Formats: sequence, C-alpha cells, structure tokens
Amino acid sequence: MNFKIIDRFISPYQKLVQNVVIPYQEKILNDEIPNIEKSHVINNFKYAAELIETGKTNGEFYGMIFQDSDAAKWLEAAAYSLGLTKDAELEKRCDVLIDLIGRAQHPDGYLNTYFTLKGMEKRWTNLCEAHEMYCAGHMMEAAVAYAKVTGKDKLIKIMENMADHIYERFITDGTEGYPGHPEIELAFMRMYDYTGNKKYLELAGHFINVRGVNPHFYGEEYKRSGWYVWGAHIHEPDYAQNNKPVRELTEATGHSVRAVYLYTAMADYARVTGDEALKNACEILWKNITQKRMYVTGAIGSAYEGEAFTADYHLPNDTAYAETCASIGLIFFARKMLALEKRGEYADVMERALYNCVLAGMQSDGTRFFYVNPLEVVPGISGAVKTHRHTLPERPTWFTCACCPPNVARLLASLNDYAWSAENGVIHSHLFIGGELDISGTHGGKVTVETDYPNGGEIRYTFKPDGEAMDITLAVRLPAWSKNTEIRFNGEAIKINNINGYVYIKKPYKNGDVLTVNLDMGIHRIYANPKVYANNGKTAFSRGPFIYCAEGADNDGEVLNLFIDKKRNAALIDDNKITADGYRVKNNGALYSFDAPLYEPYTITLTPYYTWGNRGLNEMRVWLPSV
Amino acid sequence: MNFKIIDRFISPYQKLVQNVVIPYQEKILNDEIPNIEKSHVINNFKYAAELIETGKTNGEFYGMIFQDSDAAKWLEAAAYSLGLTKDAELEKRCDVLIDLIGRAQHPDGYLNTYFTLKGMEKRWTNLCEAHEMYCAGHMMEAAVAYAKVTGKDKLIKIMENMADHIYERFITDGTEGYPGHPEIELAFMRMYDYTGNKKYLELAGHFINVRGVNPHFYGEEYKRSGWYVWGAHIHEPDYAQNNKPVRELTEATGHSVRAVYLYTAMADYARVTGDEALKNACEILWKNITQKRMYVTGAIGSAYEGEAFTADYHLPNDTAYAETCASIGLIFFARKMLALEKRGEYADVMERALYNCVLAGMQSDGTRFFYVNPLEVVPGISGAVKTHRHTLPERPTWFTCACCPPNVARLLASLNDYAWSAENGVIHSHLFIGGELDISGTHGGKVTVETDYPNGGEIRYTFKPDGEAMDITLAVRLPAWSKNTEIRFNGEAIKINNINGYVYIKKPYKNGDVLTVNLDMGIHRIYANPKVYANNGKTAFSRGPFIYCAEGADNDGEVLNLFIDKKRNAALIDDNKITADGYRVKNNGALYSFDAPLYEPYTITLTPYYTWGNRGLNEMRVWLPSV
Repeated sequence: MNFKIIDRFISPYQKLVQNVVIPYQEKILNDEIPNIEKSHVINNFKYAAELIETGKTNGEFYGMIFQDSDAAKWLEAAAYSLGLTKDAELEKRCDVLIDLIGRAQHPDGYLNTYFTLKGMEKRWTNLCEAHEMYCAGHMMEAAVAYAKVTGKDKLIKIMENMADHIYERFITDGTEGYPGHPEIELAFMRMYDYTGNKKYLELAGHFINVRGVNPHFYGEEYKRSGWYVWGAHIHEPDYAQNNKPVRELTEATGHSVRAVYLYTAMADYARVTGDEALKNACEILWKNITQKRMYVTGAIGSAYEGEAFTADYHLPNDTAYAETCASIGLIFFARKMLALEKRGEYADVMERALYNCVLAGMQSDGTRFFYVNPLEVVPGISGAVKTHRHTLPERPTWFTCACCPPNVARLLASLNDYAWSAENGVIHSHLFIGGELDISGTHGGKVTVETDYPNGGEIRYTFKPDGEAMDITLAVRLPAWSKNTEIRFNGEAIKINNINGYVYIKKPYKNGDVLTVNLDMGIHRIYANPKVYANNGKTAFSRGPFIYCAEGADNDGEVLNLFIDKKRNAALIDDNKITADGYRVKNNGALYSFDAPLYEPYTITLTPYYTWGNRGLNEMRVWLPSV
Repeated sequence: MNFKIIDRFISPYQKLVQNVVIPYQEKILNDEIPNIEKSHVINNFKYAAELIETGKTNGEFYGMIFQDSDAAKWLEAAAYSLGLTKDAELEKRCDVLIDLIGRAQHPDGYLNTYFTLKGMEKRWTNLCEAHEMYCAGHMMEAAVAYAKVTGKDKLIKIMENMADHIYERFITDGTEGYPGHPEIELAFMRMYDYTGNKKYLELAGHFINVRGVNPHFYGEEYKRSGWYVWGAHIHEPDYAQNNKPVRELTEATGHSVRAVYLYTAMADYARVTGDEALKNACEILWKNITQKRMYVTGAIGSAYEGEAFTADYHLPNDTAYAETCASIGLIFFARKMLALEKRGEYADVMERALYNCVLAGMQSDGTRFFYVNPLEVVPGISGAVKTHRHTLPERPTWFTCACCPPNVARLLASLNDYAWSAENGVIHSHLFIGGELDISGTHGGKVTVETDYPNGGEIRYTFKPDGEAMDITLAVRLPAWSKNTEIRFNGEAIKINNINGYVYIKKPYKNGDVLTVNLDMGIHRIYANPKVYANNGKTAFSRGPFIYCAEGADNDGEVLNLFIDKKRNAALIDDNKITADGYRVKNNGALYSFDAPLYEPYTITLTPYYTWGNRGLNEMRVWLPSV
C-alpha cells in the first residue's frame, strides 16, 4: 500500500514542513539560528565521536539529558520528507549525520552522547530519568523511516547494535528495570515490523511486561545510584505509568505523553501477539481518555504539574497542559487501536486531535510552536501569572526542551500512513485526504481521492483497476459528527449500514467508477458532560472535524464577555468562519453587583481553533457561555 | 471606649474560642495532642532558655523557622480571652509562658529560639526568610494585648528590649534591610499606640520607608550569606512587596498575607503622621484589592503558588488560595482605613471577610481549620489532583505551619475592637454586634445594642446617659448590600442621608431612647464583573452579610450540575437556608454531545458559605451557572 497525498489542505502543510520546518530545525540542530536557545545536539555527537575515536575531547555535552532525541526526530521527519519528494542534498546531509551518529557509538553498541561525554560509569543507573532508551527509541524510529524511504540500512544497523546491547543487559543478564519515559517499546515494535526479527518483539514485550511489576523500582534505583536529574523518582509511580503491571491499568494517569506512547506500544504488541488481556487494558484506557479525560480539541493532560492527566472530567480550559506531543501520541495510540480493530471512534479521535490541537501547535508560517494548547486565553493572565506560566498566549520561537516541533514535523510528513488500512480485500478510508492510493500489489489497482475536506464535505473515490475490476470492499469511515452522510456510487444513492463507524461497500470496482461521500458539514453546537464543571452552561461549535473558537481579533478585541444565544442562529460565512447570534455583556464596572448585567446583541465570529494565535496577542475562548 | 459583646451570633464563637480553640491550641503548643504534627514550640523556648542560662542544652530546635510566633499568637488570643472572662488559671499559665520567654532572651535583647538553638552567628543574615522580625512583631502584639488586659508589663519590657536591639542594629548602626514578611511594622504601631514612645513610631516608619527602595536587597543578602530556607530570594520582588518604595505601589501583588499586613501598617502610620502620599497609596491598594482582586467571600489570594495575588479579575473558584489569614489581614487593613477615614466600604469589606471567609476557616466545633477557602469543591479533584492539593475538601486537624488557627482565635476574641469607633463626639457603629458600649469617659454614657444580626436585620441601640443626655452623634453604617434601610428614633422614622456609607444622627440621647435600624434582609442575586471569566453567566446569592453556597448534603449529593433559573424565585426557609428555583442538568453520559442537555426542574438549597464543610465530604459551589 502506498498513498501519495495530493490535497488542498494537507499538502500545503507538508510543503511547509519540507520547506520551512525541517530546514529551520536543521539549522537549530547546528546552532545556526541566532538569538534562540542553543541546541548543540550535533556538537554533542561530534564530541562523543571524537572521544570514542581518540580517547579525548575538549568538547562538553550541552542540553537536556535527552538532547540526542532532537537529532533522531529531525532525521525521522527528514526521512518522511524524502519519501514525499526526492532531495539528493537533504539525503546527503542525512547520511552525513548518520555517519556521525555511527561514530558516536561505543564498540559494545551503546549510543548516547550524554553519558559518553558526562561519564560512562553512570550509564543505565538512572532509568527513571536518563532517557537513554527514549533516545534510542527515537533513533530506531528514524532508522526504520530512513531505511524504508532510502533503502539504506546504516542507521538500522547502528540501532540493531544498540538493541543487542540492551537485550544483553536487560534480558540475557536479567538486569531489573524499565525506562522512565516509554518510547522504546513502540520503537522496538517498528523495528520488528520492518526487520521481522523476533528479538525486537521480545524486547518490546519485555519492557511492557516488567513495567510496574515492581512499582518501587525507581525509588530503589535512586537509593543505589544516589544521583538524579530532576528528582522524578519522587513522583508517584503513576507519573511514569509504573504503579501497576500494565494489564491492570484502568485509568490514564501521569505524564500524558509517556502514557500514550506506552499505550501505543501495548496496542501494537497486543495486535501482533493476540494478547487479549493487553488488548482489554488498551480498550479500558482508551475509553478512560476519550470519554472522561480529553479536551474537545483532542488535547490531553489537564495539569502543568507533571504535564499530566489529573482526574475524570477535570478539564480546565485556561490552565490546560494539552501538550502538542500528547495529542500526537494519542494519534499514535488511535492508529494502533485501529490496527487492532476497525472502529470509527479511533479514527474520529485521530482526526479530532490532528485538525485541532496538533495543527494549532504550529504557527501558520511553520517557525513557531505551542507546547501547550489552552482552550481559553487571557492576555495578562495566560503566560503571566504563576498558575498560567505554561499557557503562553503566543507561540515562542523555540524551547529548551524541543520535543513538540519535530514531533509535529514527523507526523505531518507521514500522514499518508494514517489515512488508510488495506487488509484482506478490505480497504478502510480513515482520514479524508486527497491523493492516490496505490494498492496494485494487494488489491489490484489504484484509488484516487479528491476532496475539499476538511473545508468541504464531498469526498470522491475514483477507481483505476489494473485489470477489469478491483473486487474489493471499500470501507468508508462515518464520522460520528456527520449526522447525515450520503453516499452515491456512480451517482446512485447507497443505503448506509453503519458497522462500528464504517460503511462497507463491496463491489467489483471498474475503471472510472466513482464513489462519492457527502458528509454533513453543518454547524454543530457542542455541550460538555455536566461533570466537566469548567464548562457548565457553555457551548462550543464545530463544523466538520474543526472545533471553533472566538478570538479578540474577530470580535472587537474582547471575547470573555460574549454569550451565545442558545435559540438563535449560527451561519457559515466567508471561508470557514462562523457567525453566531449572541450578546456582549456589560455591567456597571463593579466587581460584584446586585444588578444583572446588560446583554447587548452582538454577532460573534468564530474561527477554527487550529488557526488561533496567528494575529497577535488577544483573548481566545473555545467554550462560550450561553443564554 | 469599652465594648462588651453579648450577642446571639458572635458570643457563642467567642465562647468556642475560649473553651475549645485556646485550650486545644495550648495543648498543641505543649505537644499534648497525640497523632498530629508536633509543635515543640514550648520546648524550643525551654531549650533556648537553658542554653542562655547554662551555656548548653541537649535540646534541639524543631518546627518552622517562625515557630516562635505560634506561642505569640496563642498568648495574644489568651489575652483577649482574659479580657472577655477572668480566668486566674489561664492567666497564671500565661505568666509562666512569659517568664519562659523572658529567660530565652539574650542579654542584648535578641529573642528568637531558632537562631539561639541553631547558631547565633546566622542571626539577621537572612531577613528575607528567617522571620525574626515577624516573630518579634507577633510577640509585641501579644505583649500589648496582655498588658492592656492584665496591666502586667513583663512581656512589654521583654519586647522593648528586643525593639531596642532592632533599633540599634537597623537605625543607629544603619544596617540595610527589611523583613521578608511584614508584621513588625504594624506591631511597632501597636507598641507606639500603647506606650506613646516615639521610638516605635520611628521604627515602624523606618521599615515602611526603606522597603523596596533597593528591590534587589534579598538577592544581595543571599549572595553575602549563602544560606536559605526555601529560596524565597528567587521570588520576584513583588512577592514580598519590595519591588518599589511603598508609596509607589499601585497593585496588590505577591504573598497576600504579607501584603495586607504591610498595608495595615502603612495605613496606621499614615493616620498618625498625616502622610498623604502614604494614605494615597493605601487607597489605591485598597481599591485594587476590593474592586479587582477579592473573592465575593472577602477572600484574597488567587494562587497557591506564592500564596499570592495574581492579576486583576483572575479569581478562579476551584483553585483559589483564599487563605484565612489573608482575610484576617484584610480586616486589619480595613480597620486601619476606617481609622483614617470613615467610609462604609471599609466596614462592608471587614464584614464580608469576617462572616464568610474567616468563619468558614473554622470547623463548627472549633478543632479543625481551613487555610485555604475555595469557592468550589469537587471531591476527587479538590485536595487530590496536583493543581488542587491545597484546596482541601475537609478541614484537617492541624498544620505544620499553624498560622491560621491562632489568627482566627485572636480575631474572634478581640472583635470588640472592630465594632465601634468613638471620636470627637461621634460614635460610629461599624459592625452590628449585640453588647454594651461603655463610653462614659468620653461621651457620657452607655449604649446597649440588641440584635439577631446577621440572621435578623433589626438592630436596637438603647441609650443610658450618665447624666440627663448624651449629646452625641451616632453614625450607623449603611451596608451597601442593604437596599432599603429604615431607621426609627423612638418609633419615628428618620430620613436617611447617606454620607460615605454612614448616616449621622445627632441627638441629645436621653435615658431609654431607642434608635432602631432595620436592614434589608432580602435575598440578593450577585453577578460578577464579566472580566471575572471564571464566573461568566453565574450567579451567587447573599442575604445580609452572608454569601451562600450549595452543598451536596442539601442537594441530593450533587451540585455541579445545578443551574439557577434567572427568572424564578428564591425564598428564605427554616433558619437561614435559601431555596431557589432551578434545574438539574442531565446529559446522555457522553463527554461531548451535540444534544443539548436536559434541564429538569429542581429546587436548589443554599446555605451560608461559612457553614460549609461541616457535614462530610461533598461538592460545594458558591457561583452557580444560570439559565
């Protein structure tokens, strides 16, 4: 299966990633952008290589303990970019970087510039915080992506050596422990998927299975080693999802990125091994997140403290953590749940997170990023007062911890992997993205997708069989938000039988056959469960997959005093803006008054959430009070 | 002027303080209550005395660096209690404690058990955090209170020695610096008020005037000393109100208790000295607090981080810090503003803080206390998730930092000092508390006050002149919340002329003359300024000075899904409960839904906020959404 994206909405994003984000981040890795936090990541590899090759270096490590992963994530994004567009120069620079990475690897396979430069005697003594496996995992992901696109296996070989090193220590020698930040588990699954080598499946299973069996491991580890980075061992064990064995987890807790990375690996491992208990745990965790702990934008993580999940229905809008990387991880998890079982809700959430939280994470020019994606912003409070230091009202240029920007880049550049499944004569259309699906090898032809989605609701699938017909089932997702979906085959209406969120249309598809899907692109008002006490009496708006927000820029500078009229109209106007009848509330200026405020009619303008924060500092609100 | 409280509402509180709170806290000071955090404060004084007297001790200091202040605040409360009721045994125990305190004083006047036991070489090297002047200030307050009630001046003498020591160091020797936690400034003013010694006025003025002139003092101090307790020097200077010279302050910032303690001293110093610039700063700060940064319960401090003010209109209900001590400090500030100028708004705020936040700080049985007084409580979130660790849903037994309980005790036991002013032929009735005002010495008689206030709205002032008549002006506060106040003199209606929140009634008051005030005790709906974005579309209720709340205990266990009907009734029922027509909202169980929730009619029961949390763990909400 190969899906080439040619899409009015997504292709410009991919070009932005290719033309702006990846080159910009490459410059950052090389410390070529002035006036921003130094990266030093390439230098770290250079000094580590020098030390290994010559026994000495004058260079010093600089950056976060997981700085290596910035190189890995950039390489992975670059690999996807090469998959979209050949670029001999970029590929050459990737090869140079990979050579450098190889030179920074120790003879025993160990690869990590922090410990190489800071002292190898401390390696593997702080699994809780040191991110050695996290960095290795990201480098394995890059290796698989790069090998798939270029056919070059140098980085795969490097990471196979590192995997062998880990295998020897943690499986052969039986050293206790599991990584503080899950990541390598899903990476081992990707290594297994690409190489077929069961060793990687075993490694993934090992770290999934030992996790939380001894929930006190990190505390014990600290007692032995006596050193720490931030003191993460003093967090409760659910911070790193090691409070219980993973099959017993029932609530999404702790650091939200760690959580969804772990669940991604669990779902993938459950699929490959048929482990029902693990699958069951994944389903319970999925429900807990999506039915009780997820923002309407597909964001997760309610608290800055621990960058973490908090409690059911605790979804504050103005102090949300809602990290871009966590929503990306939720998309990873959803994709693996879809691989386990084709349920539209998984793709619905994938879409919700993508078109709202993740895209909002990036400035429209591709050079600035949000870590934190609040649903309510108040200049002077957001990013300013102590409880809101994290909810920046504008995207900063770069972060000391640069995890989100390259994560956005690698996701957007690899979206083709999320749009379709093709298995056993059935092809599932999960995401509505224009392009050409080539399934000649397995399903006898090609399918072209044309659409204005997500701004328009029509999706046209045109079939080009290799032979006379493609005798397949096309399964089209029926988004839960589309209350009236119509499907026509060569112009003739098809009755829709919704099976777990998909309609299955089996045909001998002939050349030029067209299946047209028309989704309900009406404006919807959304109401939160009353237990979400932050949103009592409030209304949000959506159209298609987009969640909307009100920004000061469209509303005479102020949105916090706007109320939606429950009974009156909302309408789509130019582009994808919505206007809704409402009121601007005015009071007598008193902090508290017995006089009911005055409601002056006002037409409220709403824009898709993903576009917010591109027009300077202003108020923003997703959930508007209503009268 | 002497006011003896005999009041159906306040007297039981004073008895609770005398019979339960003071004895309970005395036991705590002596470590006689099992299973709670050790106090050790008496032992600290014993060991310090032993060390000073014999040159050695085996005892060690234990507790917070400001542990001494617990003894001081208890002594002050005990002094007020002795003023209410003679108690030879209690007085004897106070004398024993004072003797012990005297023995723990160094020959040079220095008094502080922390530095005495931990090392005198460090004294005065960390004004930022070490609370030496804070402890001394509280002990001065106790000394003045104890001397006034008992006529015994031993503690006054002890603290005069300490004051001399401070004078020598900071004025005579010109040592730079000012205390991290303002307190001693207001205490010096009390010492001046009691002794008439201008040295104390000079000391108060000194520490008010040098504050913030060098905003970098704490950082410089840390560079010299190299030691810290919590690292408070890394806070921004506005944390301790030393960002600017005090006359330039325009916003209430930083640690809210420190702020209002400082402003109290500023207002008092401005009154005594006639310093218009200082008075002006106080008025600006007062307005900033009460018009932009105060909860409807009279609570202040919006953030746990720094226990601090945050920004205008940022008043989150569920994560409020709203410390009991801060509202007590606000009452101190209001009292001094009243002394500067008779404006009803000062007494209105004093009343609001007292009858809501402060009384809510104490369990109805007097043994448990809230530090933090949120306006919205959700079991499972409040006191549980990381952003809400401070907003406990039930009062704990004791705190490591035991500042609030003795602060409540000393305020309630000294409320007689807050009810009246009597100056130049005019007596101002600020708080409506039953009792007997004896102003024979200055105004020629007595005034008896009878009332059911705050539950009832009638207040009867009966005059008992020493001679034929008291030729005075009675100024009665006209609370801003009382929209229809009626006043009768011997049954005959008096036309009310509202002058800055008071009505001035000048009469030759004869024996048995009765002035009757009838306040409007109707139920009011309160609306917050729309800029308070936490409260958009929400309504609170009040009756008299009480702010109401809904608790689960009265509302079938759940209040977060209750909505007030804007257009329908609210009524007073048994005692002081209110019922209001409203709705319970139900949805289909989904986290987000396109289906508007169902509003089922429900009669909502509201109780005064000060009574909340006395019936087990349950949901609580002051601001209810409305439809």
